[in-house]
Amino acid sequence: MQESTNASPGWLDEIAWTADGLVPAIAQDANNGDILMMAWMNRESLQLTVEEGRAVYWSRSRGKLWRKGESSGNQQVLKDIRLDCDADVILLKVEQKGGIACHTGRRSCFYRNLQDGQWTTTDPVLQDPDTLYGSK
Amino acid sequence: MQESTNASPGWLDEIAWTADGLVPAIAQDANNGDILMMAWMNRESLQLTVEEGRAVYWSRSRGKLWRKGESSGNQQVLKDIRLDCDADVILLKVEQKGGIACHTGRRSCFYRNLQDGQWTTTDPVLQDPDTLYGSK
Repeated sequence: MQESTNASPGWLDEIAWTADGLVPAIAQDANNGDILMMAWMNRESLQLTVEEGRAVYWSRSRGKLWRKGESSGNQQVLKDIRLDCDADVILLKVEQKGGIACHTGRRSCFYRNLQDGQWTTTDPVLQDPDTLYGSK
Repeated sequence: MQESTNASPGWLDEIAWTADGLVPAIAQDANNGDILMMAWMNRESLQLTVEEGRAVYWSRSRGKLWRKGESSGNQQVLKDIRLDCDADVILLKVEQKGGIACHTGRRSCFYRNLQDGQWTTTDPVLQDPDTLYGSK
């Protein structure tokens, strides 16, 4: 995205926000199509995502803006931003810095699948979360 | 998925359902990685998805089960089902029958992107929705 993009009210007003003023945002690897994560955005975080050219979510648990990678350095650089037919889901195509989107140190948050009635971990930890976020 | 899969309470209980008893489910083309749509599931629809081997959503607007493709014939055959780290988002990898997931007759519901402050349609209509769903 261009840094000069002006977040006019128009395109933000077209979003079908939830009653809480949020919209779900899917982050997809722009290079290979892997789905990395899904998180939530409010109006401010979506505007900042476009203005800053990187994913900025709204942390529902912490109740504040969450610039993805602010602790780990693993930013998500915005390559494309899409809206679905009902205008109630955002799709971000991103370049995942550091190759790790998940707080567990895995590439994607979707690292488990259902096998024989069990959620089974299929993807490896690429980096120890303690080193990803520093010692606590 | 195997038809014989038993939907034990165990794996369903691990889902972090919303207060309304729902979980968002992303449908991704298993062949090329395209994100087709995002919809919602309740416990029954998720269990049926696994048991029937095809996407069954919960229609919030209609307040009933929504077997994807029940009108259009464009079913989503389940190839893999994944859960994210917080257990609050489902990812379905599917074979999209008919090549059309969106009710507008497009391949994907994410057919618009943001260009110069405007949501801009980038993907073509592949089939007239009137013929997709029959005359009304």
